[in-house]
Amino acid sequence: MAEKVIGILGGMGPLATAELFRRIIEKTPAKRDQDHPRIIIYNNPKIPDRTAFILGKGEDPRPELIEGARKLESWGADFIIMPCNTAHFFAESIQRAIKIPLVSMVEETAKRIEEMGIRKVGLLATDGTIKGLIYHRALLNRGIKIAVPNPEYQKLVMEGIYEGVKAGNLELGRELLLKVAERLERRSEAIIAGCTEVSVAIGPDDLGVPLIDPLDVIAEKAVRLALGMEELGD
Amino acid sequence: MAEKVIGILGGMGPLATAELFRRIIEKTPAKRDQDHPRIIIYNNPKIPDRTAFILGKGEDPRPELIEGARKLESWGADFIIMPCNTAHFFAESIQRAIKIPLVSMVEETAKRIEEMGIRKVGLLATDGTIKGLIYHRALLNRGIKIAVPNPEYQKLVMEGIYEGVKAGNLELGRELLLKVAERLERRSEAIIAGCTEVSVAIGPDDLGVPLIDPLDVIAEKAVRLALGMEELGD
Repeated sequence: MAEKVIGILGGMGPLATAELFRRIIEKTPAKRDQDHPRIIIYNNPKIPDRTAFILGKGEDPRPELIEGARKLESWGADFIIMPCNTAHFFAESIQRAIKIPLVSMVEETAKRIEEMGIRKVGLLATDGTIKGLIYHRALLNRGIKIAVPNPEYQKLVMEGIYEGVKAGNLELGRELLLKVAERLERRSEAIIAGCTEVSVAIGPDDLGVPLIDPLDVIAEKAVRLALGMEELGD
Repeated sequence: MAEKVIGILGGMGPLATAELFRRIIEKTPAKRDQDHPRIIIYNNPKIPDRTAFILGKGEDPRPELIEGARKLESWGADFIIMPCNTAHFFAESIQRAIKIPLVSMVEETAKRIEEMGIRKVGLLATDGTIKGLIYHRALLNRGIKIAVPNPEYQKLVMEGIYEGVKAGNLELGRELLLKVAERLERRSEAIIAGCTEVSVAIGPDDLGVPLIDPLDVIAEKAVRLALGMEELGD
């Protein structure tokens, strides 16, 4: 099977995009440069904030998302992935605008959780991801229950993501997100790092239950697709 | 001054490309996603090995390099940077094929060394970079002397880069490169991490003399250009 070109619609945020790129490379079984697949990254941090729009307070990110996806398609990407959970709220609109597949990080993560036999999972994510029911739709379809932080703790998650990781203060982000995760794990069999800024700030060793990292799930999927170990559409 | 789009002609190697991307983001004074510049990365690891060609043993990488640079230009990049020191052997051929500037990591590094007042610098680099006189030309023009490892130690550098970092064995790469660096620093005022795989494996805290990292130099330059803090051509 021929190798495929990975397209990354990135910039949401930039650090999460760099992290996804690095994980794809590290997960590729390669002994020299030439064994790695081609990757085209459009890091476009100008896409309006996804959560703000879902909550009715901001500019519509769809035009920039669709334009970016079309660019990647015209540049030669064979499929597209997006290192932003909240942006998956718009996945169907983006998919309708392009002919190549947008491989959903959210659907792939839900599949992985189902395969692990988990019945109740905690979700660390933006208000946009939670209010937009992005993971809820994918998980409830598979009979998996979801626990989210209470409103007071959810504020800490948003602070950890926006004032912490996105603002370049990784330590603050880590502290706040760990505080919430420790409470959430009491009523969950596993926790989804459901915002790419969470993936950047905390790791599996930080928790008492498994941390499911959508960035890892999509990086592994992208490698299998790019190297032809799996067909698009499987 | 308007923001500019950074084009990265990458894949040489992929890990160095991810590292350059991350450093650009970390060096950007940004408080939110939207403060970051747009970046387009063409990670093309299929470019034939640069050192092999310079030593007369491999396929010409110029066609792939030029095609990649033209792609980035047509995709909207305002300038191009390359996270591969050895590829700068072909910088003039690439520049002639495109209208946007290829901002040279080697020239920027030589400028930085001159500004630091250093008179003799050690070079940790591939055989291709050394035999191709890539840094020699840029540094001797500025009256700066160069120390390179003896042939026996240079073999360890190549092993550290190819069997170590490029093959995914970072620990081996680090061990071998440190061994050579410790010897080279006895006769140098500073050391250039003159291969992007060296930048990935060792850091400034590992040495007794300053480690000049071209990846840092070009990341800082790219941020200043992209944010309009400096004009192209300055």
